[in-house]
Amino acid sequence: MAGVFGAFCKNGHSVLEDVYLGLYALQHRGQESAGIAWNSNEGGEVNSVKGMGLVHIALDQKYLAGLRANSAIGHVRYSAAGPSGLANVHPITANYSMGSVAVAHNGNITNAMGIRHMLESRGAIFQSTTDTETIIHLMAHQSHKPPLDALVDALRRLKGAYSLAVLLGNRLVAARDPWGFRPLVLGRREDTFYVASESCALDIVGASLVRDVKPGEIIVIDEAGIKSIRIPVEASRLYSCAFEYVYFARPDSVVDGKSVYEVRKTLGCKLSASAPCPTADIVTGMPDSGTIAAIGYAGCAGQRYEAAIVRNRFVGRTFIQPTQRVRALGVKIKLNPIKKLVAGKELAVVDDSIVRGTTAERAISMIRQDGAARVHIRIASPPVRFPCYYGIDMLSCEELAAAKLDIDTLRATVGADSLHYLGIEDLVSSIGLPPSDICTACFSGEYLDGGEDNGVDL
Amino acid sequence: MAGVFGAFCKNGHSVLEDVYLGLYALQHRGQESAGIAWNSNEGGEVNSVKGMGLVHIALDQKYLAGLRANSAIGHVRYSAAGPSGLANVHPITANYSMGSVAVAHNGNITNAMGIRHMLESRGAIFQSTTDTETIIHLMAHQSHKPPLDALVDALRRLKGAYSLAVLLGNRLVAARDPWGFRPLVLGRREDTFYVASESCALDIVGASLVRDVKPGEIIVIDEAGIKSIRIPVEASRLYSCAFEYVYFARPDSVVDGKSVYEVRKTLGCKLSASAPCPTADIVTGMPDSGTIAAIGYAGCAGQRYEAAIVRNRFVGRTFIQPTQRVRALGVKIKLNPIKKLVAGKELAVVDDSIVRGTTAERAISMIRQDGAARVHIRIASPPVRFPCYYGIDMLSCEELAAAKLDIDTLRATVGADSLHYLGIEDLVSSIGLPPSDICTACFSGEYLDGGEDNGVDL
Amino acid sequence: MAGVFGAFCKNGHSVLEDVYLGLYALQHRGQESAGIAWNSNEGGEVNSVKGMGLVHIALDQKYLAGLRANSAIGHVRYSAAGPSGLANVHPITANYSMGSVAVAHNGNITNAMGIRHMLESRGAIFQSTTDTETIIHLMAHQSHKPPLDALVDALRRLKGAYSLAVLLGNRLVAARDPWGFRPLVLGRREDTFYVASESCALDIVGASLVRDVKPGEIIVIDEAGIKSIRIPVEASRLYSCAFEYVYFARPDSVVDGKSVYEVRKTLGCKLSASAPCPTADIVTGMPDSGTIAAIGYAGCAGQRYEAAIVRNRFVGRTFIQPTQRVRALGVKIKLNPIKKLVAGKELAVVDDSIVRGTTAERAISMIRQDGAARVHIRIASPPVRFPCYYGIDMLSCEELAAAKLDIDTLRATVGADSLHYLGIEDLVSSIGLPPSDICTACFSGEYLDGGEDNGVDL
Amino acid sequence: MAGVFGAFCKNGHSVLEDVYLGLYALQHRGQESAGIAWNSNEGGEVNSVKGMGLVHIALDQKYLAGLRANSAIGHVRYSAAGPSGLANVHPITANYSMGSVAVAHNGNITNAMGIRHMLESRGAIFQSTTDTETIIHLMAHQSHKPPLDALVDALRRLKGAYSLAVLLGNRLVAARDPWGFRPLVLGRREDTFYVASESCALDIVGASLVRDVKPGEIIVIDEAGIKSIRIPVEASRLYSCAFEYVYFARPDSVVDGKSVYEVRKTLGCKLSASAPCPTADIVTGMPDSGTIAAIGYAGCAGQRYEAAIVRNRFVGRTFIQPTQRVRALGVKIKLNPIKKLVAGKELAVVDDSIVRGTTAERAISMIRQDGAARVHIRIASPPVRFPCYYGIDMLSCEELAAAKLDIDTLRATVGADSLHYLGIEDLVSSIGLPPSDICTACFSGEYLDGGEDNGVDL
Repeated sequence: MAGVFGAFCKNGHSVLEDVYLGLYALQHRGQESAGIAWNSNEGGEVNSVKGMGLVHIALDQKYLAGLRANSAIGHVRYSAAGPSGLANVHPITANYSMGSVAVAHNGNITNAMGIRHMLESRGAIFQSTTDTETIIHLMAHQSHKPPLDALVDALRRLKGAYSLAVLLGNRLVAARDPWGFRPLVLGRREDTFYVASESCALDIVGASLVRDVKPGEIIVIDEAGIKSIRIPVEASRLYSCAFEYVYFARPDSVVDGKSVYEVRKTLGCKLSASAPCPTADIVTGMPDSGTIAAIGYAGCAGQRYEAAIVRNRFVGRTFIQPTQRVRALGVKIKLNPIKKLVAGKELAVVDDSIVRGTTAERAISMIRQDGAARVHIRIASPPVRFPCYYGIDMLSCEELAAAKLDIDTLRATVGADSLHYLGIEDLVSSIGLPPSDICTACFSGEYLDGGEDNGVDL
Repeated sequence: MAGVFGAFCKNGHSVLEDVYLGLYALQHRGQESAGIAWNSNEGGEVNSVKGMGLVHIALDQKYLAGLRANSAIGHVRYSAAGPSGLANVHPITANYSMGSVAVAHNGNITNAMGIRHMLESRGAIFQSTTDTETIIHLMAHQSHKPPLDALVDALRRLKGAYSLAVLLGNRLVAARDPWGFRPLVLGRREDTFYVASESCALDIVGASLVRDVKPGEIIVIDEAGIKSIRIPVEASRLYSCAFEYVYFARPDSVVDGKSVYEVRKTLGCKLSASAPCPTADIVTGMPDSGTIAAIGYAGCAGQRYEAAIVRNRFVGRTFIQPTQRVRALGVKIKLNPIKKLVAGKELAVVDDSIVRGTTAERAISMIRQDGAARVHIRIASPPVRFPCYYGIDMLSCEELAAAKLDIDTLRATVGADSLHYLGIEDLVSSIGLPPSDICTACFSGEYLDGGEDNGVDL
Repeated sequence: MAGVFGAFCKNGHSVLEDVYLGLYALQHRGQESAGIAWNSNEGGEVNSVKGMGLVHIALDQKYLAGLRANSAIGHVRYSAAGPSGLANVHPITANYSMGSVAVAHNGNITNAMGIRHMLESRGAIFQSTTDTETIIHLMAHQSHKPPLDALVDALRRLKGAYSLAVLLGNRLVAARDPWGFRPLVLGRREDTFYVASESCALDIVGASLVRDVKPGEIIVIDEAGIKSIRIPVEASRLYSCAFEYVYFARPDSVVDGKSVYEVRKTLGCKLSASAPCPTADIVTGMPDSGTIAAIGYAGCAGQRYEAAIVRNRFVGRTFIQPTQRVRALGVKIKLNPIKKLVAGKELAVVDDSIVRGTTAERAISMIRQDGAARVHIRIASPPVRFPCYYGIDMLSCEELAAAKLDIDTLRATVGADSLHYLGIEDLVSSIGLPPSDICTACFSGEYLDGGEDNGVDL
Repeated sequence: MAGVFGAFCKNGHSVLEDVYLGLYALQHRGQESAGIAWNSNEGGEVNSVKGMGLVHIALDQKYLAGLRANSAIGHVRYSAAGPSGLANVHPITANYSMGSVAVAHNGNITNAMGIRHMLESRGAIFQSTTDTETIIHLMAHQSHKPPLDALVDALRRLKGAYSLAVLLGNRLVAARDPWGFRPLVLGRREDTFYVASESCALDIVGASLVRDVKPGEIIVIDEAGIKSIRIPVEASRLYSCAFEYVYFARPDSVVDGKSVYEVRKTLGCKLSASAPCPTADIVTGMPDSGTIAAIGYAGCAGQRYEAAIVRNRFVGRTFIQPTQRVRALGVKIKLNPIKKLVAGKELAVVDDSIVRGTTAERAISMIRQDGAARVHIRIASPPVRFPCYYGIDMLSCEELAAAKLDIDTLRATVGADSLHYLGIEDLVSSIGLPPSDICTACFSGEYLDGGEDNGVDL
């Protein structure tokens, strides 16, 4: 899980502060580290600043606002902890014989380990444990080629998911894998071009959405203008991630031409048809993930919508230590029902998904303590039963509640009076893309190439 | 603006972590500093920890979880900046000849300066510039009396608003001024009693709401149990703050017996009757302040509700420097409309209030850029035209948009197609308390005792 | 143990950076906290910055260099640890009815507790546990008098040691107790007057030593110039601290007219006469405290001086955790003999004093391991057998090696081949002041007024 | 300028705290950064902690004391500032195909750039700008060989100065270049072997000096014991650095069998013969660099030695900002003469060297202001006229006072009444090694191979 952003301005204005703001808008895609890389206009060397934590902690806005660079890329991510943490923070940068390169990556390269072993046997020294460093080493081992050719050559050897913002010298390059797993958009404001994981990051800098970067496309932006080339790999079909619409992307983003907000409302609407709850006095959403689907559910069903569960708006901004007392209080720290609304009532509670099931169990218990007569759970996506190998950090099968339990057992475990999921067909039709363009692997187990990681020929 | 919390456990369990959590639930009442005071069981001296910033930054949860104290109070506040900042952070504590005392205060004592001058002429040295320190000095100048008697004597000399959590040695005392300006509730969980500015802070620690502390009441909690005494001052009428319901309190709190959520929905419902907008395609709220009233408005009017404006959920957690670029981008940093929802539509946008008018102006401009056909503003409270002397840090009259401009000029300034406010009578009836119990001074200019600060006789 | 510094410039130049530098030169007098107070020229309120640690950590030089104040005082001290630490950092400041006051104090007021109890019974609230706060409260209880009169009235009630730098508004006041326990000097550079605990702090700011502040003298410096008044207390004799010359003051300071360096050389010279060591091959000093006396000893005895023990010049700058391994290595962390110099040699090692005896024991053991044939210890002061009540934080009698053990037992304990101390008469004659002007209480047990703390009449 | 330290304990005791202490004793060799690397006993991966600043700031002693590792190396250095600073902090570590390697390096590899360009053309990506990284990449490009063979092969390609502490897995390796530029010693305490830049670092951990690592020697220490192998490069002569004795090494160290303290005393003694100052009343040293030579000078000349200039013992521990005021005060911040000693006197001031000349100029001016009649400067080494390419960060020729000015002009510039240097022959004979074993390049300009950097064949 990560977000990438890049900017290039041909009239020489500095873009570093825009990259900072773009990352700020993509903060929901990764909250453990952030970094920005840029090319110092004179020296030709790539510079970067990186840090752990939220964007405003990891990076120094004032310092960035005082620097000049007309091209830059940035990255937010969930990163592994530990002493070597900072080495794994993106962008990954290097100065090699053909110049400087910096890479910000969202996704997961499934044949990275095979490539790494091959390169190490030829003398390469890896600094990080990220799959992304593979790209740079593949380029360095083609150091007789111009950097862009070396990048294309590197990308054609990769399997899996990658939406990239790359700096080659001060050229900005955007690339999206041939299967289109992760989103990537192109934007523009006057003389400045932008690439971003989601369109909401274009909005924050006042840019317009030009179009999605196409699966298999490389877009190169420099003083000469903008051009598009192809990664020479043929994809049998597309795999646009359904989970971006269900949960991951921001509702104000447009992904592959579809409004995330409208998809979520449609998910709720279709759920009300396939899993109605006519006896409910109130329809509410588990905040904030279930809110939009709940509005859609209530609207299509003609039932009363209430924001009956309040989320402490400081949760997430602050870290509460999981002491014994805090564990005993559980979900109360984050969520609180409006007692007068739920007491004596029958509720339909809509959420986007169930992962471990513990949050649902505790929330239902809390609602019942506040006097609810009956609690029905409606999930606006199919059960998540399989891990994701393409960049979303799902749990392993043993931890996924829906992979271990049948739905009725799960209903009993979480303590709901009824529990219903949306069907895969309803999910796919809600998104509105051709079914063969959508990746539903975490629901269906249908992976690219049957899930096989083929290694690489060099 | 501030929040107070206190806890006393007679079976010897430590309450410090509960006070930390209580403050966390009251974070919306003050985000600039936080402090906790407790009585070390052996020494008899009062200890405190204080810091600037949000609760989790100002205070060290782990340190507190490792200490033992069976009584403690805490405070969050908006505090003045500057080098002497920390001296003004509550609780205000002192060790004086009759023992130790700590005071956490929400409100504003209107005759504090007169009392202070009198005490200084008698040799008192004030350490802070807070009105609250007055209470401790009044007690010290009655040092021949037992501490509780000295406290009662101090309180009877005060004018204005005070909801207090006090430690006298390790006794916990709650006190609310005779006019009842600010809320204060009593809660209980097994052997532990709590006092809090709002009931949502009882919920987070798993306590039940016992009742409101009554105007003019002092509640004393110690090993012997709980008792109630009166502040010997007669109030001609009550002044329960209307703005708590409109904006300040959390929607999941119950203030003076009334659910804040339900009051806000009623405000929206009554607004739809007095200021309908039948041509609107969509009713939406300015997030997060206008959301509940918007749901009420749409429901009563039978119109379509959409969460059409997305608030970046990291705003507030992070501080964006107001650089030139950021000012140019304006409200985009925080809010983003769903373009597909607003393009070509006529919108009714509900908010709780207008202060300076700049946010409204920028938001309307942004909605229009995304293609809205018409934008109508509906405000779920009357125009704020007067400053508050009772603890809410309203702006001065020159800054209050509604104090300077008539409504039509204001409408033109913010760029709305129409602008309507709720009437004072609708506000009062929405709250549901007797009209003579509600303070509407910021709307009407009707202050306690005509606004006069009478000084004090010692 | 503390150091004070003050500056007043009548032509309006800011003196804050000079106060910072003055404290830096007095760092040896207190390394646990530092603070500076000044009067903002317009407001009349006293401001202060304070912090824990060395001057450069506790205070922000750049911030101070950017402020303007034409009068200021500062303080370095050894302060008690614990949560209330910062409240005890000097200068102690207050804004009271007659204006603002700030006090920096070196010494110890022996009747402070009696005064404090009296004042608390009259309503005073003390914020710190320092004896210094007593002075401010005494002033506030005379608030009908002009501030300078109130200060004189406060000082006449005090017993014990105080060398003060005080700000009354923006007047700079220096005061030294009638017994002259602690040093205090007056300096000048062009239009700027300075007061300082030691003359080395005048040197650092380029000022000349004008004269010592006399015992019982108050010097007042303001726009009108400089004047001297008397504390109305008659001292039967003077008590200038001998230990300042032996150990505490810097060698480049001049205290009560005597060069500390020259006194220390004379101590060594007289020691070589009373306790010769004619068989020694080398005379060396325990660095850095014994170096100057060792040069004096070797010079007068006509013996060879060598800097045979090296002190790690980073010790003190860095804090080494006292882990098990570090304790096992002992004094090796700090001191290292030059092996080639000591192997097979007979050494006379000169030090200024022995406190616990553990350092001496470990150093002797280390020298022997490096092959020394014999090790003789010579101490350039009498045995310390009594606690100091006048501002030097000696150990209690149980910890003072020389209070518990006779000299021969102590010799055996530290492992020396011989051990000799200087006599009190030699100490007194080395200083060169009249014997009746010198305090030797820590050597002789002869305290002011027989050590009695007389309380106070108000 | 740097210091290295390594430890290996075969009985399994953790050596991390000893490495910390060893670095602490070598702090004078580098104060801008510090790092430690060790091999986690299970995983086989190399770990490291690094930081900017003094050892106690850069590294966490407590954290290290809590870890277990039976082999480790450490490094202190002067490092380039800037955002990429931390990447250049040693030890340089890598996990490559044949295992893990960590290198701590003192010296300067003169053909590093040539090797780097060659390796980059073969696909290598360098992470730092240090010459040291070259060693690791040379090893990785021999990844078919066992690590020790790859290291030997790498070292034989290097020109210039390197004293190394290396970890190969958990084997400890020490290596010194064939010319012996920088010192390196082997020590032992019971079952633990140590390598260190100077013997003073053996003393601090209680180890004995076994012997110097010989020029061209590689010492390998592992569970099997200790063995010595040769770097297959023939050196025409040795180049042991004279400046280590003059200034750089600690006086309590023994370098290539010679006591640094005794060399410095001899330098002073010979200087008194070649450049006597019979009219001086006092001989003193510029603290701390000139102290030992001054004792030697005074002793041989039979003149009076005084520690007449006091160095603030907190200088270096604290950073004073170079504000306008501080620049005006100049060297006063650091040094202060004893006025009573210098007033009216003729002084001989001994120092180890003159670099820019500004400190000397300011010190002389300060001594004259304190009343000195005449000031003679005596320098206990020859004029530094040439840059060092072997690891000491001398200034460029334009900045070296003695490279620009003849001695009489320099005397006039610094304001001395006379100025004399030691001759190169006296320097060499004071050290006591064969003249052909000593590098005097910074004095004479005679570099290895005529200063030529020959590149490398791979």
